[in-house]
Amino acid sequence: MMEAEFIAALRRLPLHEGAQGLSDDVARLGDLVITTDTMIAGVHFLPDDPPGDVAWKLVAVNLSDLAAKGAEPVGILLNYPLSDTGWDRAFLAGLNACLSALGCPLLGGDTVGLPEGAARVLTVTAFGRADAVPARSGAKAGDRLWVTGTIGDAGAGLKAAQRGDGPDALIAAYRRPRPRLAEGRTLAPLAHAMMDVSDGLLIDGWRMAAASGLALTIALDRVPLSTTYRSYAGDDVLAAATAGDDHQLLCALPPEVAPTSIATCIGSFAVGKGLVLTQSGEVVALPPRLGFEHRA
Amino acid sequence: MMEAEFIAALRRLPLHEGAQGLSDDVARLGDLVITTDTMIAGVHFLPDDPPGDVAWKLVAVNLSDLAAKGAEPVGILLNYPLSDTGWDRAFLAGLNACLSALGCPLLGGDTVGLPEGAARVLTVTAFGRADAVPARSGAKAGDRLWVTGTIGDAGAGLKAAQRGDGPDALIAAYRRPRPRLAEGRTLAPLAHAMMDVSDGLLIDGWRMAAASGLALTIALDRVPLSTTYRSYAGDDVLAAATAGDDHQLLCALPPEVAPTSIATCIGSFAVGKGLVLTQSGEVVALPPRLGFEHRA
Repeated sequence: MMEAEFIAALRRLPLHEGAQGLSDDVARLGDLVITTDTMIAGVHFLPDDPPGDVAWKLVAVNLSDLAAKGAEPVGILLNYPLSDTGWDRAFLAGLNACLSALGCPLLGGDTVGLPEGAARVLTVTAFGRADAVPARSGAKAGDRLWVTGTIGDAGAGLKAAQRGDGPDALIAAYRRPRPRLAEGRTLAPLAHAMMDVSDGLLIDGWRMAAASGLALTIALDRVPLSTTYRSYAGDDVLAAATAGDDHQLLCALPPEVAPTSIATCIGSFAVGKGLVLTQSGEVVALPPRLGFEHRA
Repeated sequence: MMEAEFIAALRRLPLHEGAQGLSDDVARLGDLVITTDTMIAGVHFLPDDPPGDVAWKLVAVNLSDLAAKGAEPVGILLNYPLSDTGWDRAFLAGLNACLSALGCPLLGGDTVGLPEGAARVLTVTAFGRADAVPARSGAKAGDRLWVTGTIGDAGAGLKAAQRGDGPDALIAAYRRPRPRLAEGRTLAPLAHAMMDVSDGLLIDGWRMAAASGLALTIALDRVPLSTTYRSYAGDDVLAAATAGDDHQLLCALPPEVAPTSIATCIGSFAVGKGLVLTQSGEVVALPPRLGFEHRA
């Protein structure tokens, strides 16, 4: 079953009001913001990725969802498949490094025995606390679209890791993403809508616009690319804007707000629907794939 | 790595105080009680078990951990691997039945694509609210050990399902366990310690005694067996007491408390350590395996 069909079916089950109609990346319970992400070897990470990096990424992708709601991390649960001792030890070392670096303690979890030959499936559930929690769906016509940091580094890092030819900075962006927790706390009280860029800038921007019932124009020439990205991948902004794993924050801000020290303005929302791309003011065609979509 | 070694290593990471030193089946965050369980095809359920039953069991084992803390369910998160549409649809139907029957709504979750040939790995995280929360480790010398319901039905149901020869009541105990939520709320304010029986009565009783720093004697002839169990499996109380998946509640109560309408007294705690089994007042040898232990 496709993800969209499955989620539509889930919406017909008894839902908690904190589920927010399953329209966001987080659930809410009082002032708690809750998110969960599962990673599978061969899908979300390479089977030969260093286990410590897998641990880091698993925690970081969850904390990135908290960052997108302006939340302060409280703790995580870990669901872990026990396997060979060397892998488990290296995973624990990376987990320790990540929890210490990001100031997020372990709350609990579950361990299971991994059957011979089975793919590793790992889950983290993260808890944060927040006052102002911007939804994915709150953008208003006239809002500008802003994104933190640079786009495409992780996607290029994945290619670099596969080819074994890449700059360390790009591979680190793929393997050890830094959730934008401080930026999220700064932007959350200002933002009409916010989410993290996990499946690709274009698809996630499109999702924010669709959830908000608006049209979105993105100026490709304003999408921030790092110097390292440009020297490795050239000026291929479409590749950067459709690659996953950026874990930057995407937010809709009213026109009078301009947090230029932590983000870049790359587009605007208007009445209507759909996504329009421009380059130097001219409309350009959408690529066939806007980003990463989960499917069976 | 063995589970015990992994958990010992987790205890050396930054821990939230609500993790309770990873010594219980739940974490606590304010008045929230949080638990998570992962199930793997071929380990926790049979690959050809009906998908609706897998959904039921996945939710029920988590709510059983809430029941053991006297908690009222608030909601669940589901981490689900998308696969073939028929399996997904049947799973959703069972999930709907379970959430409706147990009065527990969906709060959120994550879906991932299941790679070709990969074993299904499913996780549920459950949230409940409770005032009095008995720990696993609170038993006192002189307390009696009580257990709700009957023991061994689910273990016999697993065999019956594998052989295709069993009574429906036993197979239902294995596939659609009923978390003892009402009993848990009644027992929690009375109990010094409480946990659910998930890996086997003997091993879970031993764990409660070890966590409490006490010795435990269990009178095998007092272990409650159902009529259906006896007619299918005979009087093999050791098989019943070492089988997993009962999801009854095990609690340590002071001697003056006797909730005989919902539980049976099967033993007592004393100063010391270790587990002693008796039959008609005589000490009998421990079986080589006290229950189910997770290992790599």
